Parts: sequence; C-alpha cells; structure tokens
Amino acid sequence: MYDVYAVREDFPVLKEVVYLDSTATTQTPIPAVEAMVEYFYKYAGNHGRGAHRLARETTNHYEDARETVARFLNAEASKTVFTKNTTEGINLIANSYPWEAGDHIVTTLLEHHSNLLPWLRLHKNGVNVTVVNPDDEGIIDTSMIENAFTEKTRLVAITQVSNVFGSIQDVKNITKLAHRNGIKTLIDGAQSAGHIPVNLKDLGCDFFATAGHKGLLGPQGTGVLYIKEPDMLESASVGGGTISDVEGYTYVLEPSPACFEAGTPNIPGVIALGRAVEYVEKIGVSEIETHEIKLSREAAKRLSELEHVEVYGPEDRGGIVPFNVKGLHAHDVALILDQTRKICVRSGHHCAIPITRFLKVDSTVRASFALYNTKEEVDILVNAVAGLKALVC
Amino acid sequence: MYDVYAVREDFPVLKEVVYLDSTATTQTPIPAVEAMVEYFYKYAGNHGRGAHRLARETTNHYEDARETVARFLNAEASKTVFTKNTTEGINLIANSYPWEAGDHIVTTLLEHHSNLLPWLRLHKNGVNVTVVNPDDEGIIDTSMIENAFTEKTRLVAITQVSNVFGSIQDVKNITKLAHRNGIKTLIDGAQSAGHIPVNLKDLGCDFFATAGHKGLLGPQGTGVLYIKEPDMLESASVGGGTISDVEGYTYVLEPSPACFEAGTPNIPGVIALGRAVEYVEKIGVSEIETHEIKLSREAAKRLSELEHVEVYGPEDRGGIVPFNVKGLHAHDVALILDQTRKICVRSGHHCAIPITRFLKVDSTVRASFALYNTKEEVDILVNAVAGLKALVC
Repeated sequence: MYDVYAVREDFPVLKEVVYLDSTATTQTPIPAVEAMVEYFYKYAGNHGRGAHRLARETTNHYEDARETVARFLNAEASKTVFTKNTTEGINLIANSYPWEAGDHIVTTLLEHHSNLLPWLRLHKNGVNVTVVNPDDEGIIDTSMIENAFTEKTRLVAITQVSNVFGSIQDVKNITKLAHRNGIKTLIDGAQSAGHIPVNLKDLGCDFFATAGHKGLLGPQGTGVLYIKEPDMLESASVGGGTISDVEGYTYVLEPSPACFEAGTPNIPGVIALGRAVEYVEKIGVSEIETHEIKLSREAAKRLSELEHVEVYGPEDRGGIVPFNVKGLHAHDVALILDQTRKICVRSGHHCAIPITRFLKVDSTVRASFALYNTKEEVDILVNAVAGLKALVC
Repeated sequence: MYDVYAVREDFPVLKEVVYLDSTATTQTPIPAVEAMVEYFYKYAGNHGRGAHRLARETTNHYEDARETVARFLNAEASKTVFTKNTTEGINLIANSYPWEAGDHIVTTLLEHHSNLLPWLRLHKNGVNVTVVNPDDEGIIDTSMIENAFTEKTRLVAITQVSNVFGSIQDVKNITKLAHRNGIKTLIDGAQSAGHIPVNLKDLGCDFFATAGHKGLLGPQGTGVLYIKEPDMLESASVGGGTISDVEGYTYVLEPSPACFEAGTPNIPGVIALGRAVEYVEKIGVSEIETHEIKLSREAAKRLSELEHVEVYGPEDRGGIVPFNVKGLHAHDVALILDQTRKICVRSGHHCAIPITRFLKVDSTVRASFALYNTKEEVDILVNAVAGLKALVC
C-alpha cells in the first residue's frame, strides 16, 4: 500500500505549499540532504586524488553513488557519467561526437530546448537537422522518424516523456528502427527516469541523458549521462581527472567514465543523488509511476470538464498536465493560484518554444505530479481553477 | 587579531584530522552548509523559471550569490558566470572563442591540466600553442611570455598561483603586455581567489576562471567564470535558460550571464558559495593571506632544514609547500603521515604532469594551508616528516 503521507514527511517544504512543479524540479528528501551534510561535516575531501583518509572516503561514497545510479538504470557503472544536468550531457554528446560535414540528425518539435539547441548549433556548422512534428497530443508517429532517415543520418535525438505534454514516446521501438538503419539514438530522459521504469539495457539506446533533480529526487546541479560505447567519443571537455598522461602536445585520456568528468565534480550533489536514488528504489519506481499517473489523469479529466479550461496532451499521460484558462494568461493563472492557494504551478513555454507555438499559444500552465502529491492536492488545484471562472465570464 | 581557533569551530572535520590538503579542496564552513539545508527544507525551486513563491525565492537567493561573488572579485554580476568548476570555465572559453585556423595561444608548463589540455585539444585542430617554461622555482619570466608572441597570438592562458609550487605569477603585468599586443588573457585563479586579494578590474584580464570549492570555501561542484566581453563569445553549450527565442533553425541567445549557464544550475551549491564568500569577506582576504603565508613559509623553511627533505618552490610562496623525502615515494610519505598522525596531505603529480616531470620527479608531497590551519599543525607536520628520517637512513 502506497503511503503518500509517510512519504511527505521526508519533504518538509510540502507542509507550506501545494507543490505541483516537479517537472521543473522535484523536492529532495531528508535522507539525501542529510547525506550531503554528513559529507561536509565528517569526511569532505576531493574525489579520486588523494591517499589520505578523507579523499579515500569521499571517493568511496562518490563511486558508491555511481553504482547505485547505474544499477537503477540497468547500466554499467563504467558507462555512467555524472554531469551537471541533462543539458550538459546532451551538449557533451553534441560537441564530442565525431561529426562529418553533411551528417544528418533527426529530432522532434517536442523537444525541450536542451535537446534541440545543441543540434541546431551543429546545423549552423554543416550538420543537417530534420525536425519531425508530433500529432496534436504530443505523440511522435514512429514512421515519421523512419521517413526522415537518409543515408547520412547518424543520430535520432528524442525525449522519452515530453515536459510540455506529458506524452510518452516509444523510444524502444524508435531505437530498434534506428539501429536497423545503422543510426544511433540519444534519449532525453529528464522527465522519465524515476517517474517510469527505465531499463537502459532493454531500451538499447546509445546515449541517455537525465537530470538528478527531477524524478531521481537528487539536488540541482547533478545529472547522469549514459554512453553505450564510450570509446567512440573524445570528450570536448578536458582537464583535471580526464587524462592519464601528457607529454609535449600529446595526451592520453583516461577510460570512461573519468575521461568525461573534467575537474572536481559536484561531490556533495552526487552523494546526495545516490542516497535519493536509493530512496526511489525503496519505494519502487512502478509504485511511483502508478501513483503519479493516477493523480495526473484525474486532474486532467476534471480540469477538462471545466468549460473555461483547455487541457493539452494525451489521455494516457505521465505526471504532467498542461492547460490554459480561456481569457487569462498562463502567468496570471499561476500567480493567482500561488497568491490565493499557495499552489505552485509553472507557466510559460517550459523551455520549449517551438512546441508551445505548435499549440497556437505562447504559454501554458503546467501542473505536474510527483510521488509526494495527494488526491487532496488535486482537489485543491481543480477547485481553484474552477473558481477562476468568475474572472473570465 | 586573527582568531584561528574561532574560525576552526566552523569546520567540524578539523577536530578529526590535520587537514593540509586545501589546494585540492578546502573545507566548507557551517554557515554555507546551513544555507544549503535551508534551501532544501524551506524554499527549493528551480531558478528563473517560475511565477510561484518557491521559484521566486530560489531565484533571488541564487542571484544574490552572484552579486556577492561579483562584488568580492570586483566584477560586474552580468559578466560573472557560475560553472561547475574551474575546468568547465576554461573549456567553455576554449570551445566558444571564435578561433581561426593558424591562431596562436601562449600558455606555460606550470599549468594544471585543466589550463593546458583545453589548449592542446585546440592544437590538434589547427590552433597553435606555445608552452613557456618557468624557472626552477616555478616563476614565469614575463619577458619569456612576450617573446612567444606572434602576429597570430590571440590568447595568453596562465595560472595566477601554481598548484604545484605555490609560486605567484605577475598576471597583471602579463595582461598589460598582452593587451599592448592586442592579445587577450585568461587567468586560472583556482588557487588565488580567496587566498590572495583578486581585483578583476585592477587585473584587467579578459577571462578569469576559478573554483568555488577552494579559496572561496564553497561546495564542490561550483565555479566562477568572469568574461569581460561576453558578446564576443557564443557559448558552446546551449539549451534551457540560454535562449530567448527559437524559430525554425534560428535562435536568439539570452544576454550574459544566462547564455553561459545552460540547464538547471547547481542552485544549492551556488547559494552555499554565496554564503561562503560572505564568510571569507567577513574575515578579510588580506588577513587570510597573511595567515596562510605565515604558516606555509614557516613550514617550508623548517622542512628544508631537514637533511632528508627537498622542498620546491620560491621563498615568497602562497600557502602551498611541495616536498619530497629522499628515498621514499611521495605516496608512501602521504600514507604514513595519514596513518600515523592523521595528517592529510596530497601526493602525486597534482594534475600537472609536465611541471612535475620538469622537477625531474614523478610526484611530490604537497602540504597546503588555509585560513583554518594552525601553527601547531605546522609543528605536527614538521615533526612527523622529521621522524621519517629513521625510514630512509
């Protein structure tokens, strides 16, 4: 039995607000914050670089976190790289892949800017990019991806769960199709990891980038990048920790993951992330998925029953419910919900301008649900939005 | 009167060990850790992206930290970018600068890998690099830098305080010389900021990269990059938060600093860094410098009086004392000091293989001193190293 009230005890700020903005960032549970504090007060050192007890203990904890995250995603630790955020992971691939002029990338209009701009930047530099449109509910037709393939296509870059629609893409099938054509896939898992089961061996993708501070419940400033064949890339970011030797102009890179983690990493953040992922594992990601989907689908259904509200996205959505109140700007809706009921929702283009324009609006209100939200919070949201009718009539 | 014993109360781990590895990472004071905990438990949200109270409070605290750090370095907040570490800052410049084939960079053999490898990587791609040697004490003769200039020289990249020698370079004068020749300068301030006064307006450099987790006493996973003319660079890392519009294949970047901070930043880390820099300001960086130098110079002097010890670096060093015990490997020395006296020193090449080889050794022991170290700890170190004589005779 999923005990959301017990879960909520681990997130103190939830006593103060109705937090429905977990797509931007989840809250971090007490055990993860405590792991960070323990690091600072008991054994803080630098990672991998010292013989003394603090450096050794730090390194052990940091690498334990890597094992935890790799196990959670069913990936090898040696292919699991810690980044600052999803964006850094995607840029690292964009800037490190051995592109040749005329190479071709397929992506979609659904993407968060962080999985679109790195490719558009390459487009300016001789790599061609095709952007595939979704349907009106934010679903990508797999055959549209396949139709975009050319002989020069090297990569498909696609999000698993849209941060705008909450729609879920069949990235396993897309990966299969891509591989059949000798094409690699990069999955933006920012809104999937920790929210729905992600098994990288099963998905088969070549790159998977996610954030630490969303479904994995870790602190902001952490991210994870999985690289199936690390040897095919030479990191575009080099320096301390990434090389085993340098002589004159020649240097030898360390094996993965060290070659992809230049400089002192976010040690406290990664240690907290490891503890946060253990927390997610203990509750169970399938249980979390069931809980979140139940709330979001109920919210979507009840909001769409309100005459003055338009809800976007498919019925079988993840934990994300975008909507607009007719005649009110999304920012005004968000402000009113905050000021009157302490409801924290996001408003705007959600770092995804193209797909927001595709909806023929310039912004939406987005309510998003995480493991700690309740049925009562759905009620509060729906009642508050219902009450906005007085403002629009 | 500098009260080191009061300072030590803010760093709990110092009760357990003799911590002489602050060049790798300093410890973080309690007020900074508490700022982080307060963020998680009281107002955690994402930065700059929401209308609700948590997002607003988060953004205010994050931007207050930027103001604090900018004030501390005498820089404009709009030119002060938060990074993951020094290495990320230097790579960001290396990967974003508008290089042309045949451009030329001058750097030095003194550099940490993080201020050498990014340039060597460019060297593989058509940019020429000259590496200037220091003298035996780790000082760069300014005229050697000037002699390396060609008509194609675009950048001088040099460390302010060597992490291997503790030697301090005259980066202000080097910047003047460079500017006289139309050349820009990048200063690696990883070992200077927070240890010696750094005034960026006075230094005049074009780029200054430093870490949050060294002299600034912030957490690992934070760094600062100053860019004097942000408009001359187009960031090599793009995505969420960096653009104001995108339409088709065209996008418009945000003004600095947003265009250089792609994705969700290390919000708790930056907030803690802000509090840590306030802590440094309150004590006074000149007072810290005086304290550190007094300890390191006494340690260097007394260690060099031991027959079985060789000390490297100049007499007027910063807080860094590298040495070797004749007949013992540096790693063995570090291990013995740790095991017998809980002394935490670093051993190895300190992420600077070329300059370590220049010393005709493959590693050194490095004791480094910060604001919280004491005269008694110098005694403990010197006595312990003196005691090693028994092992080498």
